[in-house]
Amino acid sequence: MTVPSLDEVRELAQQLRVDSVRCSTAAGSGHPTSSMSAADLMAVLLARHFRYDWDRPDDPANDHLIFSKGHASPLLYAMFKAVGVVSDDELMTGYRRFGSRLEGHPTPVLPWVDVATGSLGQGLPDGVGVALAGRYLDELPYRVWVLCGDSETAEGSMWEALDKASYYRLANLTAIVDVNRLGQRGPTELGWDLDAYARRVEGFGCRAVPIDGHDLADIDKAMADAAGADRPTVILARTRKGRGFSEVEDREGWHGRPLPAEMAERAIVELGGERHITVRGPDPEGGTPRERPSGEVSLPRYEPGAKVATRKAFGESLAAVGARPDVVALDGEVDNSTHAEDFAKAYPERYFEIYIAEQQLVAAAVGLSVRGYVPFAATFAAFFTRAYDFIRMAAISEADIRLCGSHAGTEIGADGPSQMALEDLAMMRAVHGSTVLYPSDAASTAYLVQEMAGRGGVVYMRTTRGAYPVLYGPDEAFPVGGAKVVRSGPDDQVTLAGAGVTLHNCLAAADELARDGIGARVLDLYSVKPIDTQALLAAAAATGDRLIVAEDHYPAGGLGEAVLEALNGAGHPARVAHLAVTGLPGSGTPAELMEAAGISAGHIVRAARGLLGG
Amino acid sequence: MTVPSLDEVRELAQQLRVDSVRCSTAAGSGHPTSSMSAADLMAVLLARHFRYDWDRPDDPANDHLIFSKGHASPLLYAMFKAVGVVSDDELMTGYRRFGSRLEGHPTPVLPWVDVATGSLGQGLPDGVGVALAGRYLDELPYRVWVLCGDSETAEGSMWEALDKASYYRLANLTAIVDVNRLGQRGPTELGWDLDAYARRVEGFGCRAVPIDGHDLADIDKAMADAAGADRPTVILARTRKGRGFSEVEDREGWHGRPLPAEMAERAIVELGGERHITVRGPDPEGGTPRERPSGEVSLPRYEPGAKVATRKAFGESLAAVGARPDVVALDGEVDNSTHAEDFAKAYPERYFEIYIAEQQLVAAAVGLSVRGYVPFAATFAAFFTRAYDFIRMAAISEADIRLCGSHAGTEIGADGPSQMALEDLAMMRAVHGSTVLYPSDAASTAYLVQEMAGRGGVVYMRTTRGAYPVLYGPDEAFPVGGAKVVRSGPDDQVTLAGAGVTLHNCLAAADELARDGIGARVLDLYSVKPIDTQALLAAAAATGDRLIVAEDHYPAGGLGEAVLEALNGAGHPARVAHLAVTGLPGSGTPAELMEAAGISAGHIVRAARGLLGG
Repeated sequence: MTVPSLDEVRELAQQLRVDSVRCSTAAGSGHPTSSMSAADLMAVLLARHFRYDWDRPDDPANDHLIFSKGHASPLLYAMFKAVGVVSDDELMTGYRRFGSRLEGHPTPVLPWVDVATGSLGQGLPDGVGVALAGRYLDELPYRVWVLCGDSETAEGSMWEALDKASYYRLANLTAIVDVNRLGQRGPTELGWDLDAYARRVEGFGCRAVPIDGHDLADIDKAMADAAGADRPTVILARTRKGRGFSEVEDREGWHGRPLPAEMAERAIVELGGERHITVRGPDPEGGTPRERPSGEVSLPRYEPGAKVATRKAFGESLAAVGARPDVVALDGEVDNSTHAEDFAKAYPERYFEIYIAEQQLVAAAVGLSVRGYVPFAATFAAFFTRAYDFIRMAAISEADIRLCGSHAGTEIGADGPSQMALEDLAMMRAVHGSTVLYPSDAASTAYLVQEMAGRGGVVYMRTTRGAYPVLYGPDEAFPVGGAKVVRSGPDDQVTLAGAGVTLHNCLAAADELARDGIGARVLDLYSVKPIDTQALLAAAAATGDRLIVAEDHYPAGGLGEAVLEALNGAGHPARVAHLAVTGLPGSGTPAELMEAAGISAGHIVRAARGLLGG
Repeated sequence: MTVPSLDEVRELAQQLRVDSVRCSTAAGSGHPTSSMSAADLMAVLLARHFRYDWDRPDDPANDHLIFSKGHASPLLYAMFKAVGVVSDDELMTGYRRFGSRLEGHPTPVLPWVDVATGSLGQGLPDGVGVALAGRYLDELPYRVWVLCGDSETAEGSMWEALDKASYYRLANLTAIVDVNRLGQRGPTELGWDLDAYARRVEGFGCRAVPIDGHDLADIDKAMADAAGADRPTVILARTRKGRGFSEVEDREGWHGRPLPAEMAERAIVELGGERHITVRGPDPEGGTPRERPSGEVSLPRYEPGAKVATRKAFGESLAAVGARPDVVALDGEVDNSTHAEDFAKAYPERYFEIYIAEQQLVAAAVGLSVRGYVPFAATFAAFFTRAYDFIRMAAISEADIRLCGSHAGTEIGADGPSQMALEDLAMMRAVHGSTVLYPSDAASTAYLVQEMAGRGGVVYMRTTRGAYPVLYGPDEAFPVGGAKVVRSGPDDQVTLAGAGVTLHNCLAAADELARDGIGARVLDLYSVKPIDTQALLAAAAATGDRLIVAEDHYPAGGLGEAVLEALNGAGHPARVAHLAVTGLPGSGTPAELMEAAGISAGHIVRAARGLLGG
């Protein structure tokens, strides 16, 4: 196949501009000017450098293209039209319309889109994850191209990405920054100061290539050079927002505004009219991902009664699940705390140290999932709050990622509140399609780690710092969405429900109540989302609707509200005595802090006596 | 007062090391080696450069010291002992103990601590906020010194901070990076490559000053020069972790581990034994913050029935509240969307454009609150997820900050899910001590913006993109923790509760039900946290426990669960028909998307009929 000439590319670029104007004007919303600045860049890429089989978007040898500046979706969709996978009719009638796959910002509803973008500063970190897969796992020569905005370089996550790109020598990654100098509300911080951008990029260990982003030969050379470079490239392209239509070009006040119909007509005329060029760029080089030997997963087995921290069981189980060659792991420089180090030792070639950069940690997991890997990312539960925007967007990306947050709750003790996750259950439950797991012992942890590997969406496991007794035998099953009755008797008068460390407090409370002749049913809600509504209803029925829920979490959005919502949804809004962390904790021993927080065994006993009118 | 000589400082540094060892060994936890690497840096600072009246921590002319590497708390507390504000006894018996103010990581429980740290990468961004206040608001010569770890430079937020520090020419800010080359689990990415650090720092527009962090003269000169510099300084200090005790110095495996008692004894001997030096550094230069004229707050008044977006009312009300000279505003480069631009136009000298860096946006607000200002920070509600770790830590910092998130929910329409906040209520409700407000009209927005200015803690307001009718008269009060019965009649059979846009859907539903002769009470839950439990109970009682809650948010952790928790807490667990966004939305019109999400007036009507057995 012949490579289109730069003259042909020039025509293509104008078509991309015209179509960006047309579809956004038709939709009555969108970002035509942000598309027009990058049209020359993308035309050169599409026609001459992007190696992609448009008939086989699942070809593992295809290059990847991520629009980190997702608001330039008109340009992306115009490119899809230019290669013939989206019709002009779909572009004109679908863009930003209800039920259409041509959403306001790109999502993987489209087969040619890897990840959802639109929250700035995420596409590049996601691209780092894809490039990690290419270089270290697939060992395929595909390239990862990321179109970035200049405004989004203010996001720290962009620098986390470039830091990791250089650290991991991701020569297969090229970022193209569309430096059009205008953000939403006016000029950017650095304007057209490409030297300033270049100093930052080079400081972070990547190749900075400043170019005129409207000079096709310049662009072409930069992209060709990037393909042959030995480290990641950042093309810094000086462009003009709204390029090609004099009424808006390089003018403020036109961000995120479609052109009114009459202006759009004038723009199309100035751009040389409508075109319907179809273009196909180079084919992928071919090849298949490197295969690695598959082993049998043999989960660790724990002796009931032995004291094992769930974070330790997580690490051991993750290493066991690593027998699956598609499982990969990442950690934020705390793998000796989360115990992800067990995996790192067993499978160093499938382990990525992300250092203390939790946004990049999650983004790398998303990128690895794009390539079909089964990523587990671990850090302290508290520090996943750092990546909440990325987790939220992962759900929109329909990424399958597994997150393990250790050291949850006041139970961590002396380190104090900065290290305590007391909001993570609320945060994770709110994510679309998420699964939230909170095992209390090593046996259930092991089972659930294996479940996580097979489950889609954002799957979160919360683990505990301290060691507590193994409660279950090694052959017990813990399906997602289930619960366990850990203790019960024919005369149970009250249900004590917990998860993680509070389950052990519930058991201690049941012991104490038993000494007073009060039978207590103890319920292990290891699956916080989905929660086992039937088990809750059965426990409520068996114990006269006397329910206590204890959680090492603030009151809002956690286990207690999950129980209330489940009971309510089932049409059985029973009263729940909800014990949660209400004050701001300090340092202390786990026992002191759980007592102060009101979630200790003693508090559960008192709550039970209260329900029983004692 | 005479300035201590460097020989005296050397003794002080050894004391700081010895005390770091002693207190962490006594506590059985803590980070002595991370303290020892920075002891020379802090000894020089404390004795010769840090201008602070230790008897008057509230002196507005005092310098500020923030330990961004909060785990070096033994060092900080040893400094407090050295200046005589913490006794040796308190240090030895209090550190990391329950009920003590010497927590595992510093918090403002201590009068000399500005902000809680311990989640890395936050102290420097917070310091930027304090320095903004110094340069632009107080106009006082105090300096802001931030001790940073080398590991935390992997956090993007550190680069957001340096970017803003240079953009705002914060010559009053000095970061001191303790480059001890060892993180928690091993070597850092950049090791002792001070040149690499320097390239990054200079690339971001700050002065990089590489030094030997154990050469007191080097340190002294760097700090003196920083005080006279015309832009922010980053001292890059090459140090050795565990410096001064040969058994651990520069060795792996000693992060976050106290020395066992016998090792501690040997360390103290090697460090020259216990000392009890008291030192006071220079006094502050004096002065008081610049005073600005105070005006009368005159809130905007809206005509009932007029269509006004709550985000517009927010901006206009914020500008009105700006008559208070302590009110300041910040935005993440979307002030023409959030309408914070109204404040920016009225009070440009008290407005800070943070560009697209939401972590720094929140951190700057925290820093401004340290100096007693009343910050309002605004961006799209969805993008506050980017700063959740900062918001969580702001609560531990006991900072008083006000956040306004616009464009919440599916109601935004065509832009699609990346721009929709559907998790923000869960996220914000879970924050300790937070207030969550979600007004439905311009009148209540105006009132609540003024309430926000007077309220402590993390106060969040959610606003809506579209314009909806003003429901209330301009003299109505909307106390935090209240609710409004917007419509009621003697024969109400069902309560329709909403907030924000769904309140309008509830009103439309009530209209339709009325046409069928069904009386519906409509409840405006503008205060999501705290919620008006009495109003909920009254409505339940008046309408036979038939309650519908509709929210433009995912089901978990939002308005519905807040209602369930409130009813449950009041001992009245009534069944609630909970309408929330269950699927993953795409693009469309607000009406289409709310219909598809199941929260439209039609859905509310159907739910009501369902409750009434229709």
